[in-house]
Amino acid sequence: MVGLDDRDATWTLAHIRKHIEQGLPLVPLFNIDVIEASRERGAVRLRAGEHVTRPGGSIAGPVQFALADVSTYALILADRQDRAAVTVDLTINFLRPALLLPLLAVATPLRAGRRLFTAEVRITEESSGRLISHATTTYALSLA
Amino acid sequence: MVGLDDRDATWTLAHIRKHIEQGLPLVPLFNIDVIEASRERGAVRLRAGEHVTRPGGSIAGPVQFALADVSTYALILADRQDRAAVTVDLTINFLRPALLLPLLAVATPLRAGRRLFTAEVRITEESSGRLISHATTTYALSLA
Amino acid sequence: MVGLDDRDATWTLAHIRKHIEQGLPLVPLFNIDVIEASRERGAVRLRAGEHVTRPGGSIAGPVQFALADVSTYALILADRQDRAAVTVDLTINFLRPALLLPLLAVATPLRAGRRLFTAEVRITEESSGRLISHATTTYALSLA
Amino acid sequence: MVGLDDRDATWTLAHIRKHIEQGLPLVPLFNIDVIEASRERGAVRLRAGEHVTRPGGSIAGPVQFALADVSTYALILADRQDRAAVTVDLTINFLRPALLLPLLAVATPLRAGRRLFTAEVRITEESSGRLISHATTTYALSLA
Repeated sequence: MVGLDDRDATWTLAHIRKHIEQGLPLVPLFNIDVIEASRERGAVRLRAGEHVTRPGGSIAGPVQFALADVSTYALILADRQDRAAVTVDLTINFLRPALLLPLLAVATPLRAGRRLFTAEVRITEESSGRLISHATTTYALSLA
Repeated sequence: MVGLDDRDATWTLAHIRKHIEQGLPLVPLFNIDVIEASRERGAVRLRAGEHVTRPGGSIAGPVQFALADVSTYALILADRQDRAAVTVDLTINFLRPALLLPLLAVATPLRAGRRLFTAEVRITEESSGRLISHATTTYALSLA
Repeated sequence: MVGLDDRDATWTLAHIRKHIEQGLPLVPLFNIDVIEASRERGAVRLRAGEHVTRPGGSIAGPVQFALADVSTYALILADRQDRAAVTVDLTINFLRPALLLPLLAVATPLRAGRRLFTAEVRITEESSGRLISHATTTYALSLA
Repeated sequence: MVGLDDRDATWTLAHIRKHIEQGLPLVPLFNIDVIEASRERGAVRLRAGEHVTRPGGSIAGPVQFALADVSTYALILADRQDRAAVTVDLTINFLRPALLLPLLAVATPLRAGRRLFTAEVRITEESSGRLISHATTTYALSLA
């Protein structure tokens, strides 16, 4: 049996970041950095990069979706070490155009259940704190 | 003043495809092809490519989000020629892992309003017709 | 142990209707009838009644939500006989004002899984077939 | 022309409450009280009452939907005095069973635009502060 301390010792931020970058090639491709992963918060930053814009020059919806999804996955990895957790659904509201990088996405738990994990994500412009988009998402856990 | 016939003549499938590929660099990056754009349907195909997988090897959520979003944008361009239409919100339900490419995403209108355009998208494995994910999305139109 | 045949014999449409009307007092209150419950479809009808309008006289959102939720519950009862199934989330798009009763809500499965059941619901005006609203919802099953 | 002060003077909390109770008969029926309406927050309380339970005895989903929808409408009435604002879509995540009344629903703006108003709603048990459900919703404004 693996205790909590052993578990936390293995799934450090560096380990979570490496697991995500290797499993999700679009994370390094879009220049997304996993910057925090704890039981309280998962956070990622989108730095300047290619490929990420939409007509008009702002950050494309699929890239913002990636920020919401990956920040939640980081949160779940830190809380549950469940690499096989999968997204059940995600709703994202695009509130304002994202014109200024970096963006910050912060996921916090709404309910951390045994089988399902529901989180809320706020995506902001890092420099101004301006809210760009809001998401809620539910993951199914595999270790239940 | 531009009449309906002129409009349709300009915004052909080839024109819409080119507009999307130039405005959304992640479309060619992910190997997404716009294959249909009419007032009834927008459709895109995801062919084999790099960058698109998630842990476990299936197609990542953000890539499926891109399929849903882009197929709807193609539908709106064909119906309204409104290049400045923007996604207000999108809800996606991931139903089954997408293991076999190509994927097909087909967007159909739920309501084509004056200011808002709401569509439904079904993403299937092309070979089997198996339903992979389902999305609903609302766009705000700029030409109202 | 209860076999499949026994199960189907017990959870008839009449039994499902009675279970829903007793467990959900807002169903008779709003004049909602469960009219179909099979593995393929759950359907309810909203007949004329008090309490159901919003400012302007059309059918209020919470009443439409009830139609979507109850038609899905009927579908799940017919397929799984799981009276403790609970709604995880529901997204509803209101497309057109509902001015003419009766309304019909039809739920069909998007994915009938072991732990989660995801359905799509279309709410129409019965007389015209006009689409009034669209919902997707996920239930968590208790018998998994 | 009506200035801001006149406007605020007319659409007091008492006026908003009366407008909602008369236009939405399910509000008094379910024993829902509008308790706050400002540009920053709309809030409603669900007190003990009939009709509001689901199988198992907790508060039914449609009632929670009503709390989310009505608290947002109160917020919009306070901010915009737009009685013809209509719900475009609403996503609700049911996190925990609501067993203990009263419930409190608080809506806050995510984006208060010219044509669209997007809000977030948290529904809690008033006594414990326990989070019961979370919703995001977009309204279309009529006065744009």
